[in-house]
Amino acid sequence: MEGRDGYLYGRGVTDNKGPILAALFAVKEMKEQGKLNVNVNFVIEGEEECDSAGFQTAIHNNKHLLADTDLLLFSNEQWLAEETPCLVFGMRGIIQIEVEIIGAKVDLHSGIDGGVLNEPLVDLIHLLSGLVQGDGKVLVPDFYDDVEGVTDDEKEIYEKVGFDVRGYGKKIGVSSFLTSDPLYFLMRRWRYPTLSIHSVGTAHVGSSTILPKSAKGSISIRTVPNMSNERITGIVHTYLRQKFKSMLSPNKLSVKTVRTGDWWKGDPHTPYFSAAKEAIKSVWGVEPLLTRSGGTIPTTKFLAEEFNCEAIHLPMGQASDNQHLPNERIRMKNLLKGKQVIKDLLTRVASIPIKDKEQKKEKKKERENEDEQK
Amino acid sequence: MEGRDGYLYGRGVTDNKGPILAALFAVKEMKEQGKLNVNVNFVIEGEEECDSAGFQTAIHNNKHLLADTDLLLFSNEQWLAEETPCLVFGMRGIIQIEVEIIGAKVDLHSGIDGGVLNEPLVDLIHLLSGLVQGDGKVLVPDFYDDVEGVTDDEKEIYEKVGFDVRGYGKKIGVSSFLTSDPLYFLMRRWRYPTLSIHSVGTAHVGSSTILPKSAKGSISIRTVPNMSNERITGIVHTYLRQKFKSMLSPNKLSVKTVRTGDWWKGDPHTPYFSAAKEAIKSVWGVEPLLTRSGGTIPTTKFLAEEFNCEAIHLPMGQASDNQHLPNERIRMKNLLKGKQVIKDLLTRVASIPIKDKEQKKEKKKERENEDEQK
Repeated sequence: MEGRDGYLYGRGVTDNKGPILAALFAVKEMKEQGKLNVNVNFVIEGEEECDSAGFQTAIHNNKHLLADTDLLLFSNEQWLAEETPCLVFGMRGIIQIEVEIIGAKVDLHSGIDGGVLNEPLVDLIHLLSGLVQGDGKVLVPDFYDDVEGVTDDEKEIYEKVGFDVRGYGKKIGVSSFLTSDPLYFLMRRWRYPTLSIHSVGTAHVGSSTILPKSAKGSISIRTVPNMSNERITGIVHTYLRQKFKSMLSPNKLSVKTVRTGDWWKGDPHTPYFSAAKEAIKSVWGVEPLLTRSGGTIPTTKFLAEEFNCEAIHLPMGQASDNQHLPNERIRMKNLLKGKQVIKDLLTRVASIPIKDKEQKKEKKKERENEDEQK
Repeated sequence: MEGRDGYLYGRGVTDNKGPILAALFAVKEMKEQGKLNVNVNFVIEGEEECDSAGFQTAIHNNKHLLADTDLLLFSNEQWLAEETPCLVFGMRGIIQIEVEIIGAKVDLHSGIDGGVLNEPLVDLIHLLSGLVQGDGKVLVPDFYDDVEGVTDDEKEIYEKVGFDVRGYGKKIGVSSFLTSDPLYFLMRRWRYPTLSIHSVGTAHVGSSTILPKSAKGSISIRTVPNMSNERITGIVHTYLRQKFKSMLSPNKLSVKTVRTGDWWKGDPHTPYFSAAKEAIKSVWGVEPLLTRSGGTIPTTKFLAEEFNCEAIHLPMGQASDNQHLPNERIRMKNLLKGKQVIKDLLTRVASIPIKDKEQKKEKKKERENEDEQK
């Protein structure tokens, strides 16, 4: 790690070793000063990027250590820009699917066999082109059925963000987006589902006259409230199978779900969320932007359900932090103020009346019972 | 190189070091026996697989060494099956094109930006899917306009071949082809054009959540008499550009022709071709199958035009020779009989009356003059 110009540079400094340390030091200092009036448990796991294989089991087996959790505090994601702190109240889910078309048992030569058979790569391209339009509209029937309607309250939140679409376009080299309206831009990123195609691979790579014996496409779907990952997985598989059948190709189709992760949506109007907003305001002197995220942290929904409690994502780093890239960094100021925010938040949490906490829990239980009866 | 079970195994033995040596020994033996009554020149070049960059210049600069060439004899391609010798009288041409869609200046993350922009890979898939149907029909307007009509004489040639479509399908693991009729099967391979998609590559490979900043597709077109490679290249480029324009994507399109090679068609009814047929018949005891090839040897048309003469491809190896593969082989019997065929052919060529040769040349010149006047 290297310090330069008020930033720390190093692998993982912003996502998220820095924020973890800021939280640890916040708690340590509060304890030393005799100001820690709530119980704090740290759950640190280092396998999120490779699907957290043992995480759920580890939580189940040690649930007694974490009993009566009222609030989950994550420090993931980044700010939307450089100067205004953010609070994240929702994330999209993810479904990753691999579609493979398998043809002959050997690669063939276009000079010999070009023209006599259904080429697996051509089949795959037709199949994938039927999934999504160039403008991002997903063509799988009933795909959008369960997408939660937009509320006025929600619109207001996105409008307040006032995202600089043109400035962002300049930064990443995109001359025009599918929308130039900041409101719809953010909604497309955070609260609408998408289907992306990530790669198309073939059995044979290199020679440009080979007809590869098989071709594989990797797609992902970002799901949103209240889509069911299970239902969407089902309709996409069915659609691919039906469309391929209608193509009358003798090749074989394989559709595999590689990974799924749940979306999560918190409530930005609870006492806990208000406490987090107030904490940020008192430390940074500005109201935080309320944001959602297009990405997925599958543990959020799992933990919130496991402990029947609220969750908040408190991002510490700036948009320019280059997370996951070689020149990852975080501003020292953000770490120090981040530590302050956590101290302030914990102080406020301690003063939230038990009544509010209990009411909140009961309300949640009621809603769940209602859902079950539906 | 290793000898086993009557075969020689080794890189290039059948394509085409073996046939070249068979031809050299045929001429050497004839010369030693005082039986060589024609002039023979060997032109051996080893760069066909990397586009023969200097070949045409080398020929131009040394044309005087090859003056008055009456017949070009190639030994390329293989027999269509195992037991019946073949004579090749035509080849398809090739046009290789790379289509690239370039988007943002960086790879993006589907969690952050999925939903707000035209993804280059999705654009490319839509563009490529508009080129060719799953059943091989090329969708570029006017693509088939100049394809030579089928003559009865030609049909007869393919019918005589009697290709075993089902047997071939079993061998390569294809349960059904676009046609099961041997006649149309061979015509699709040899005398109709095709468009194949060979690969789709992306700027970023590996992570299944990245939206790659660019995507590239590699396609090839096999052209046939009397398509002009220049015209086809033009209409395909134009079609891709127009279709992309209609997609209203802000991404950039790049279309590049990587390589072109001319088709070639000889006349299977000339005295030279008859001599080759007779030579095969006298050595092997059977009539050769007259075949065309779906592949391309671009030098054929170039040399035939350069020397205004005929060309014949005399394949020596069997279909199972695994040319270009690690276990390439050739049967000793085929090499020895191949040598005999060449000796026999050269003897016959020497006895073709000059008159026939001159007539042939004049006829060709007349046709060319007519073509020019059109």
